[in-house]
Amino acid sequence: MSENELVILDCWASPFCMRVKIALAEKGLDYEARPEDLFGGKSDLLLTSNPIYKKVPVFLHDGKPLCESSVIVSYIDETWPAPALLPSTPYERSQARFWVDYIDKKVLPINSMQLKASGDDAMEGAKKEFVEVLKVLEGALGEKEYFAGDAFGYVDILAIPITCWFLASERFGNLKVEAESPKLSAWIKRCMEKETVAKVVPDPEKIYEFVINLRKMFGIA
Amino acid sequence: MSENELVILDCWASPFCMRVKIALAEKGLDYEARPEDLFGGKSDLLLTSNPIYKKVPVFLHDGKPLCESSVIVSYIDETWPAPALLPSTPYERSQARFWVDYIDKKVLPINSMQLKASGDDAMEGAKKEFVEVLKVLEGALGEKEYFAGDAFGYVDILAIPITCWFLASERFGNLKVEAESPKLSAWIKRCMEKETVAKVVPDPEKIYEFVINLRKMFGIA
Repeated sequence: MSENELVILDCWASPFCMRVKIALAEKGLDYEARPEDLFGGKSDLLLTSNPIYKKVPVFLHDGKPLCESSVIVSYIDETWPAPALLPSTPYERSQARFWVDYIDKKVLPINSMQLKASGDDAMEGAKKEFVEVLKVLEGALGEKEYFAGDAFGYVDILAIPITCWFLASERFGNLKVEAESPKLSAWIKRCMEKETVAKVVPDPEKIYEFVINLRKMFGIA
Repeated sequence: MSENELVILDCWASPFCMRVKIALAEKGLDYEARPEDLFGGKSDLLLTSNPIYKKVPVFLHDGKPLCESSVIVSYIDETWPAPALLPSTPYERSQARFWVDYIDKKVLPINSMQLKASGDDAMEGAKKEFVEVLKVLEGALGEKEYFAGDAFGYVDILAIPITCWFLASERFGNLKVEAESPKLSAWIKRCMEKETVAKVVPDPEKIYEFVINLRKMFGIA
């Protein structure tokens, strides 16, 4: 690979891949996104670059592979410092990392569980937990424009891609994110107005169709 | 609280608390460890400082609370830069963060599952998975003295506290970590020779007794 070649092994519907692509766009960096066929056959490059998890995204910088989206976004921020994605003080940075960890621990598993849940009880449990984490995240956002204050940054980049999966959660769970968490909902709209986000995060209707197909594939009613 | 007061809300047997205490010791910082009664009643300070998880460790720096051990250790490294715990280049840092994430995702749940497992099948499954992650970690260590090379650092600090729970895993799972992963075993001995580690990480026999009591409390055969 040539000097400063940036490649992402990608899947259009993966929030983890979107995180990396938004971070690169925020830095004004050009990259090549190589779609992976996750259900057909993964590329040799994916299997050798991420032998532990064999998952997208893999980010290749001049051929050097990096895995795990939050690790990759931190690397991008440290390698191309302007504009900064993480806040400037150690304490603010610690809070940003805390919330990204929370999102990965709570929001992602619940969202995925909800999309796989079948049966009234499983769906009701998933729905209740989903609404609870939405409210915690709304509390973390507070009255701020973005998670760290006035500027779109690290937590926003890591959080916003998940929200295009919310429409599917709303339809399967029979709930409205806007009714449950109006401030979080306003933050979603605010982020989606940014070009760096809008060009990466797909139409939620497309994700809904994708989820319908996934549920068929998994044999879920 | 006075200027530069460092407090950790602590539990002696928690690997997460040990991580913070080793990092502080590596930086040569004095701190006050306040033991929490996790099964009796948690302090108000713990509940208000960590409202999301209500868990130890909480690190208070001049009264400002931080939660989640890997977040806290990063904060300590950024606030008191010498000696550096994380490696100096963005790529090496990304690799260190990848392995800490792996440890938190794989090693900790498996270890805890194994200690709670009862019945031959559950124990055999837990044992097999435990041995597999030991081998992955041994592969990451390779021929190096420590995870990042010649110097004891971030990954070592986050990984070594877990190993005092291995004796219990060995006895319940009927396996020997040294036989499965001799290089990892040598790394454990190397780390335990460091004063900053030895004064924080308890005797595995004490953890074994603690686990016996935990299993009784949970009603596990």
